Amino acid sequence: MITLEQVQEISLSTPSRMVMLVIDGLGGLPHPQTGKTELETAHTPHLDQLAWKGTIGLTDPVFSGITPGSAPGHLGLFGYDPLRFVIGRGVLEAVGINFPVGPGDLCARGNFCTVDKKGLIVDRRAGRLPTSDNARLCQLLSEIKLAGAQVFVEPVKDHRFALVLRGKALSDKLADSDPQREGVAPPAVNPLSPEAAKTAALVNSFVDQARSILANHQPANMLTLRGFSHLPQIPSMQQVYKLKPAAIAVYPMYRGLASLVGMTILPTGGTMEREFSTLKRYFKKYDFFFIHIKGADSAGEDGDFDRKVKVLEAVDAQVPQLIALQPDVIVVCGDHSTPATLKSHSWHPVPLLLYSRYCRPDGMNKFSETNCARGGLGHIPATAVMPLAMANALKLVKFGA
Amino acid sequence: MITLEQVQEISLSTPSRMVMLVIDGLGGLPHPQTGKTELETAHTPHLDQLAWKGTIGLTDPVFSGITPGSAPGHLGLFGYDPLRFVIGRGVLEAVGINFPVGPGDLCARGNFCTVDKKGLIVDRRAGRLPTSDNARLCQLLSEIKLAGAQVFVEPVKDHRFALVLRGKALSDKLADSDPQREGVAPPAVNPLSPEAAKTAALVNSFVDQARSILANHQPANMLTLRGFSHLPQIPSMQQVYKLKPAAIAVYPMYRGLASLVGMTILPTGGTMEREFSTLKRYFKKYDFFFIHIKGADSAGEDGDFDRKVKVLEAVDAQVPQLIALQPDVIVVCGDHSTPATLKSHSWHPVPLLLYSRYCRPDGMNKFSETNCARGGLGHIPATAVMPLAMANALKLVKFGA
Repeated sequence: MITLEQVQEISLSTPSRMVMLVIDGLGGLPHPQTGKTELETAHTPHLDQLAWKGTIGLTDPVFSGITPGSAPGHLGLFGYDPLRFVIGRGVLEAVGINFPVGPGDLCARGNFCTVDKKGLIVDRRAGRLPTSDNARLCQLLSEIKLAGAQVFVEPVKDHRFALVLRGKALSDKLADSDPQREGVAPPAVNPLSPEAAKTAALVNSFVDQARSILANHQPANMLTLRGFSHLPQIPSMQQVYKLKPAAIAVYPMYRGLASLVGMTILPTGGTMEREFSTLKRYFKKYDFFFIHIKGADSAGEDGDFDRKVKVLEAVDAQVPQLIALQPDVIVVCGDHSTPATLKSHSWHPVPLLLYSRYCRPDGMNKFSETNCARGGLGHIPATAVMPLAMANALKLVKFGA
Repeated sequence: MITLEQVQEISLSTPSRMVMLVIDGLGGLPHPQTGKTELETAHTPHLDQLAWKGTIGLTDPVFSGITPGSAPGHLGLFGYDPLRFVIGRGVLEAVGINFPVGPGDLCARGNFCTVDKKGLIVDRRAGRLPTSDNARLCQLLSEIKLAGAQVFVEPVKDHRFALVLRGKALSDKLADSDPQREGVAPPAVNPLSPEAAKTAALVNSFVDQARSILANHQPANMLTLRGFSHLPQIPSMQQVYKLKPAAIAVYPMYRGLASLVGMTILPTGGTMEREFSTLKRYFKKYDFFFIHIKGADSAGEDGDFDRKVKVLEAVDAQVPQLIALQPDVIVVCGDHSTPATLKSHSWHPVPLLLYSRYCRPDGMNKFSETNCARGGLGHIPATAVMPLAMANALKLVKFGA
């Protein structure tokens, strides 16, 4: 596989513009009654027309058979091998609430929990306490002082929070303090390598102070920590592709992922229509746009085949506006499949559509899983999408003499 | 490519069952008269029906253009990158006769040969002496004593035998003593690195003693050795996939390869029918079955197009029994192509069929090379087959957050 350094060497800044429309959970499976997938059931005349003028294929987000989480699913589309750039759960939690994680920051995902008098966990989620209570407790915990590290405790949702320690030489080689079951006490945070001993002591000092502070705050009278991790060393899209990239996404998680690779996060509203009008507003200011549509994935996760069909039709209705902006390259893709029949992310390859004036059309007149399997782009890793888009934008010079 | 460690992290033990039916040498080339391959010529209604309900594609056993031996062909299907896990010829010879090779054992492939009075080779294969004579000579050579290593000499077939030395710190960095031509004396076994000097001396002491023992046993009055190798460090399928895997194969070589990756070798008879009844008998006891069909490869190697067609039809006739067992996942694949027109293994990609209730059918109603090239699984490395099968058995959790 080509390395990011090799791509960087041949990438070129030009005035051409690319739009990557990511339909979260795009791929599906056939409806048991009709034998047609969500995308095959949806009436999508504009996407079909774009497929006819463009070229289609299938992407593997990570590798054949591998069901990706949101982070690896998106990193692949942005051109970063998700098997190499692994985002820890702690970092993802912090990035997902747009906390400005810095290099060297140690992040962990925290859960408030309930322990009995002996300190044994009786509820791992503290009754899924209200987020407002969570926020108040996080504020109390933010007062904790550690010798050698700044402490940030940020509420996420329900019983979940993000812990970030900022200091020098903090190690992420730490075991979880979340036993993942009830009836036992949360263990101390153990170092997984000798050089992590100092950081483990620091984290355990945080936990001890937190225990005292929380003692009288039933049901959230204790906490567990897991997924200790640093920001991965990841070159920005500016660096690799010489782009000025921007992201349009409603959910914090996707904004966080986009900011990890250097995209500017554009302010936008909470609907698909607002996202597309944001695209129009900022279209002249950037040369790469990631626009994220969440609804298809949510409908798939809910097992709601018909709603997923409707979301896809609603996306289709926005396509003429997108075309009217005359981007040099349009990519329509997904971070993974979310078949309604499975009610979850899945491993199935994901439909891909690429349109530019320089693509090689393959004669397919409907954007569907079955057609994509026979399309001219072939069955490719998701990491191939960015080089293809860049090439079609004439932003890559010849490799080698 | 995903590593075995990464697969291991997301694999899950569940009650679901998988059957991998390996038709050795499955892929073919068109008959010059009809333009149809062996598989396209064969009447295979059950496989075709399974293709219709399932999804198909092509595998590259090692890499485009590379013709695999049996070992790399199978290792790939079991999910082990054959470019990384290389099985030396010596190990393969020992494993192929089901010799229980242990870690650290030094294996070599041996040939009995004929030398003249000057010690020059006049027949590299000692007239392909009868296997019974071979066995008697091996027994004599087994008496050889070495200071620091146990000696095993096991007959294979004709002039071929396996030598295994068991001891401490034996190196496999040794040059062959087989000059691969006649008219020269077999050279002493030379160390290829300084730390192999001691082992080389040990092996040469074996050869010297063997020379004396064989001196009066014309035509097998000398031997040559090649392919010195250790068992590769290879994690078991239990470890990587958390499976309880079993193998059904008639030929020792395939049983040996299966045992290398931790499969239990089920006792079975010498026919395809017996292999399928073995599958039925043990079906509840394991969750992964490798069932190996040799006939297609043998027919291909013999250049017998029609016989290969008949073998494929005979396999097809067993498919209803296989389906009746209701495995959660059925994979039909091959370790490589063996086109009758080439009379040998070849580099051509190999038809692949996967069926599960969670696969995405691709509308192909005939299992053939041409259809496989357009199938929904795409053109994938053989190492992708296990992750795909595991995913379809719902034995892989999400990768990354």
